[in-house]
Amino acid sequence: MRYKVCIIGLGLMGASLAKALKGFRNAEIVGVDTDKYTRDKALYTRTVSAASHDAVTVVGGANLIIFCVYPHHIPEILESCSGSFAEDAVISDICGVKKGLYEKLMPIIPGHVDYVGIHPMAGRERDGIDNADAALFKDTGFIICPLSSTKKSSIQLMSDVAHHIGASRLAVTPIELHDEIIAYTSDLMHISAAALCMDYHPNMTLAYTAGAFRDCTRVGDINADAWAELLMANSANTIASLDRYIARLTEIRESLRIGDEEKLNGLLELGGDNKRLMLEK
Amino acid sequence: MRYKVCIIGLGLMGASLAKALKGFRNAEIVGVDTDKYTRDKALYTRTVSAASHDAVTVVGGANLIIFCVYPHHIPEILESCSGSFAEDAVISDICGVKKGLYEKLMPIIPGHVDYVGIHPMAGRERDGIDNADAALFKDTGFIICPLSSTKKSSIQLMSDVAHHIGASRLAVTPIELHDEIIAYTSDLMHISAAALCMDYHPNMTLAYTAGAFRDCTRVGDINADAWAELLMANSANTIASLDRYIARLTEIRESLRIGDEEKLNGLLELGGDNKRLMLEK
Repeated sequence: MRYKVCIIGLGLMGASLAKALKGFRNAEIVGVDTDKYTRDKALYTRTVSAASHDAVTVVGGANLIIFCVYPHHIPEILESCSGSFAEDAVISDICGVKKGLYEKLMPIIPGHVDYVGIHPMAGRERDGIDNADAALFKDTGFIICPLSSTKKSSIQLMSDVAHHIGASRLAVTPIELHDEIIAYTSDLMHISAAALCMDYHPNMTLAYTAGAFRDCTRVGDINADAWAELLMANSANTIASLDRYIARLTEIRESLRIGDEEKLNGLLELGGDNKRLMLEK
Repeated sequence: MRYKVCIIGLGLMGASLAKALKGFRNAEIVGVDTDKYTRDKALYTRTVSAASHDAVTVVGGANLIIFCVYPHHIPEILESCSGSFAEDAVISDICGVKKGLYEKLMPIIPGHVDYVGIHPMAGRERDGIDNADAALFKDTGFIICPLSSTKKSSIQLMSDVAHHIGASRLAVTPIELHDEIIAYTSDLMHISAAALCMDYHPNMTLAYTAGAFRDCTRVGDINADAWAELLMANSANTIASLDRYIARLTEIRESLRIGDEEKLNGLLELGGDNKRLMLEK
């Protein structure tokens, strides 16, 4: 039997994953999307060899099923497909927050399949299949989040997927720790960039900007629907991360207010020292 | 008489400017730096044709003198050279904050020269002549900050300089407005990046990071001495900018705390809308 991969959701991430998985175990790659334009484009560009609006009709016989849809859609689709999954199928998702989702999924994962989450650390400012790219995962981070029930062979499978799509920094991390770390490395970064754009000087033009503006605000125009859901799903960790950030900004403000240049200098040195440490990690 | 440019301070910015000015009005380019290694390197790489540790010995006969040293050094050097400046010499500086500096300079600018500030919107994470690059100003912003006494010909001269070094977005801006706008487009950006690095999750590695982390923290490792001085010099504007930022972050925190996804979504939409507007400016 030919290996079969089913990608549920053919947006930026799902379609990029389908493209990047080309050739993986010589697999047949099929897809699911509720949007007709997306399905047509996925077929026309040979991103998938078959596309359906309904997961139930294509998950049958798949060895690997990866959910690339908004987290709140996953439980319903998973339940609707329960009777159609092949024996020993491996099911995964690429959601950026794991704990809350898995609490909903664990009671409804059928006994004859295995579940292992992944979080490919890749993205792009613009969404949708039109921006999909097989090279999206090249030299990126890739986190595998097993459940306590996940088989070693499924972790190995996802590690093989990571290598095939070109990810170069792999981590295997328990769900809770994943969500905590991501609240810093991803959630806080996106919040900082978005908030930098919420107010701006009315007289500014791009003449007054340089690389710092370009980079600090690069992800400031994010998919608000997707990110509001993601941040809400990780709100406790994100608040903790945000509180530390606001406290540091307030320390900087205070040093400016009282004119304590030495204190400000020390804070900036700390940031620089940490930055260099992080780049070695 | 051959045109002569004198660059005072051959660090990253001064040495890059000297390199980028090569060929400008077929000028002789001379430099000043107190550091011997810097002077030797500037001569060896033909960044300048003469280098001195003391401005007085080389500013004579210069048509254009550009200060590229820390702001607090400028008044003293300017005063020491007062008697040596050529008639009708144009004097400039590249400092990132103008108002406080110019209040100190205006009483001591000799009557036979003209003064016009500039702010090339370029930089690099690493300082010093070893990182200098003639292409540093390619396609960057460039702000000319005239005093009320500045001659039109001096503004034109700096506009010619901007074009010669490859800057592509030019603005001529009064000093106060410059400092206000920069507090947003530059100062706040650098503070946001530095503060993002002041605390981090101890278990993080680069496997958990993607483009958002890379870009939001890119300028997090800044020259603490230079930036502490720069931020202090623009503290009132920077505090105002920082207060708006902290207020937005606090709004986001509050929406997360009370679980108001609609409000969070609206804030993120606002950031995205503004980001797109700013890119058109």
